Amino acid sequence: MAERLIVIGGDAAGMSAASQARRRRGRNDLEIVAFERGHFTSYSACGIPYWIGGLVPERDQLIARAPQTFRDEYDIDVRLQHEVTAIDLGRREVVARDLAGGGEVRAGFDTLVYAVGATPRLPDWARSGVAGVFGVQTLDDGAALRDWLEAEPRPRRAVVVGGGYIGVEMAEALVQRGLDVTLVERGEQPMSTVDDDMAVLVAAAMRGVGIEIRTGVEVTGLTEQDGRVSAVVTDDGPLPADVVVLGLGVRPNTALAEAAGLPLGPSGGVQVDRRMRVLGVPGVWAAGDCVETLHRVSGLPVHVPLGTHANKQGRVAGINIGGGYATFPGVIGTAVTKVCELEVGRTGLRERDAHAAGFEFVSVVIESTNRAGYYPGARPMTVKLIAERPSGRLLGAQIVGWSEAAKRIDALAVALWNGMTVDDMTALDLGYAPPYAPVWDPVLVAARTAVDALAAHSR
Amino acid sequence: MAERLIVIGGDAAGMSAASQARRRRGRNDLEIVAFERGHFTSYSACGIPYWIGGLVPERDQLIARAPQTFRDEYDIDVRLQHEVTAIDLGRREVVARDLAGGGEVRAGFDTLVYAVGATPRLPDWARSGVAGVFGVQTLDDGAALRDWLEAEPRPRRAVVVGGGYIGVEMAEALVQRGLDVTLVERGEQPMSTVDDDMAVLVAAAMRGVGIEIRTGVEVTGLTEQDGRVSAVVTDDGPLPADVVVLGLGVRPNTALAEAAGLPLGPSGGVQVDRRMRVLGVPGVWAAGDCVETLHRVSGLPVHVPLGTHANKQGRVAGINIGGGYATFPGVIGTAVTKVCELEVGRTGLRERDAHAAGFEFVSVVIESTNRAGYYPGARPMTVKLIAERPSGRLLGAQIVGWSEAAKRIDALAVALWNGMTVDDMTALDLGYAPPYAPVWDPVLVAARTAVDALAAHSR
Repeated sequence: MAERLIVIGGDAAGMSAASQARRRRGRNDLEIVAFERGHFTSYSACGIPYWIGGLVPERDQLIARAPQTFRDEYDIDVRLQHEVTAIDLGRREVVARDLAGGGEVRAGFDTLVYAVGATPRLPDWARSGVAGVFGVQTLDDGAALRDWLEAEPRPRRAVVVGGGYIGVEMAEALVQRGLDVTLVERGEQPMSTVDDDMAVLVAAAMRGVGIEIRTGVEVTGLTEQDGRVSAVVTDDGPLPADVVVLGLGVRPNTALAEAAGLPLGPSGGVQVDRRMRVLGVPGVWAAGDCVETLHRVSGLPVHVPLGTHANKQGRVAGINIGGGYATFPGVIGTAVTKVCELEVGRTGLRERDAHAAGFEFVSVVIESTNRAGYYPGARPMTVKLIAERPSGRLLGAQIVGWSEAAKRIDALAVALWNGMTVDDMTALDLGYAPPYAPVWDPVLVAARTAVDALAAHSR
Repeated sequence: MAERLIVIGGDAAGMSAASQARRRRGRNDLEIVAFERGHFTSYSACGIPYWIGGLVPERDQLIARAPQTFRDEYDIDVRLQHEVTAIDLGRREVVARDLAGGGEVRAGFDTLVYAVGATPRLPDWARSGVAGVFGVQTLDDGAALRDWLEAEPRPRRAVVVGGGYIGVEMAEALVQRGLDVTLVERGEQPMSTVDDDMAVLVAAAMRGVGIEIRTGVEVTGLTEQDGRVSAVVTDDGPLPADVVVLGLGVRPNTALAEAAGLPLGPSGGVQVDRRMRVLGVPGVWAAGDCVETLHRVSGLPVHVPLGTHANKQGRVAGINIGGGYATFPGVIGTAVTKVCELEVGRTGLRERDAHAAGFEFVSVVIESTNRAGYYPGARPMTVKLIAERPSGRLLGAQIVGWSEAAKRIDALAVALWNGMTVDDMTALDLGYAPPYAPVWDPVLVAARTAVDALAAHSR
């Protein structure tokens, strides 16, 4: 009889694991069953803001592979609208509720992949059940929000709570749909994925497209009218709202894991080794937004929910389950975001992260351009580097620019990945041509400036 | 009495060296004299095609720092139109001809920087003195070409000889000016800076803007009418031409160096150590397009004339002359070019270079997109990787794409610089967001494909 692999969660991590396992093991060797609570498999959650905003016209464009594809081409028994409610490690079985048909399914496994993603952080005031309040974590969430925006009475005023990248992207999407948008952020700046001195550039671009930004403001409740949200209540007064979008970040979805006794780390995610095996639980694997991973710069465990990691981790788990060998060696916190006209990239540690991790460092910010200054279309680009002192090792980098800026972070990410010092980096052979860079690439200018800052510190 | 530094050549390398030396040593400690044959200092030769094509309207936009700036702000005695005709190492003096005023100058030096750049390769047929034939190595060359294009009778038909990146950029510039342009290339494809399988994409884009490409064709001579060029004669028949632009590459300008007995390496350039000291000649430094440098991947000496290297090398020489410490650790052959709508990037070794250097390798080519497939404006991007076998070490990479493609080569350049294997690269934490990349970045897809190719080879 074939072994059975059960996958809990049918998005990027789970379905990558399932399909990689299938590539290496045929159906007579391995039966694969995937339970997914929602209506979709393998979709781009990161694309939801663009669908809401209208840049991506059709929901199905966000779906990388439909359930039927997995059934037909990968021989994976995908069960949609099946919510796993318990994992019994002793009996090696899971219990799932059929949300559509009703009833309960029990299924035994030899191997289990836990890939249930993350859940939006919900403050108490958001749990009231008032209509018109939305997270945007899943495609089902996005569909509900879109329906609300298109139904009568048409929402006119939106409040986005939280200025992380999801909040910022959603604020822009809602402006694109013609709503009046206010973004409420508890901290000093929205776009807290970069340091405040860089985030201030982003805030200016957001205001430029008409987003009202309220910083240093805490949301304390909601008011409603006829069961629909009518305002967000803050410590600075009420903000009228016909729709509220939550961008307060997410936490690993570990309710099931915790109940089953899987180990959770300090970041709150499931603990795994670099082959994505759950620590100390033979035959059980985990991947994606529910796991904890190593930050290679700080050396600390972190929770970094991001589609690209989920895909890689799922693939690694699947290769290993299939009998191959693959590892996920951790992350360095690279992220890119488009905010209105602006491009934002970051990698490694922000100043606050570097402090928290105990590093001493210098940080420098330089202004340059994306192209040679004389070449048409040259736009400003700001580069920030954070380097350990006295070693000079790069700890983090941030880029904000108006064009062709975001993906420049990749060169810095690879430098960081390899433990380069800013001194080494001044010699890097980066691409130069007037349409693409000044003769001194902004990255090199930043590295030189960091070297000078280190020297000034050592005097 | 102050020591005297003489700099021969007033472009990027020479003036970087001079100004860095000045920053560290005052005028009472170091007198600095720079001889420049032409009319300009520190200009962007790489920008000449865009000035010719009209994208950059004014010549002076290409000048980073004018001679008067060096005189006023750096206390450097810049002598334009002074051609150094001899270096006497025994007497430690140079002889310069005053091209404007006439006469000869002799000047002693304690320290010498040789930074005379490169000269275009001129086949015999181009030496005839027929009017209307131009190289585009210096701003003076560019000015002469532009004058020719604007004088009566207006040239209508252009032939560009040589399909390296200068030839390709010039062909596009001449099309932008409204000329009928034919590019003649001896090899199988223009854009030989990348392998033929990538260059074919570039050739298609060039044809798309109306450039006629004649490959496998050798130029053998010129015909003239009233002293003006009238056609280029090839082994495949004549090509009518009112103007001919040479893009046959350049060689290090070493006539003076050779006469003075400076050591030349196998690539033809002046041999220097990593502090940019001429090997075995105390007090003499060299930098820029006239020197030979280490290719860090092949381990072989190469001649790579490029403004970004010239600036770095000049800076290194100047810091060392100034009493500091800096090194130039070599190049890895990174280059980016805009060709019509297309963006081209390369780093490391092409297949032919890898063969020549004695490597065994696999090469893979993958197709992806610059953005998530569903995001508006997603365009194709082709990535090629060359990896040593069996080690998997990256040897080279090439990217051709329609948008936001060229500078992606930097991430690969940094990976190559650090000696990464393609297996290591599959785990790289690169920036992901739908406007900037598919969830599997093209670089990661290429690395995975290369891993598979290596595995297939080892079976």
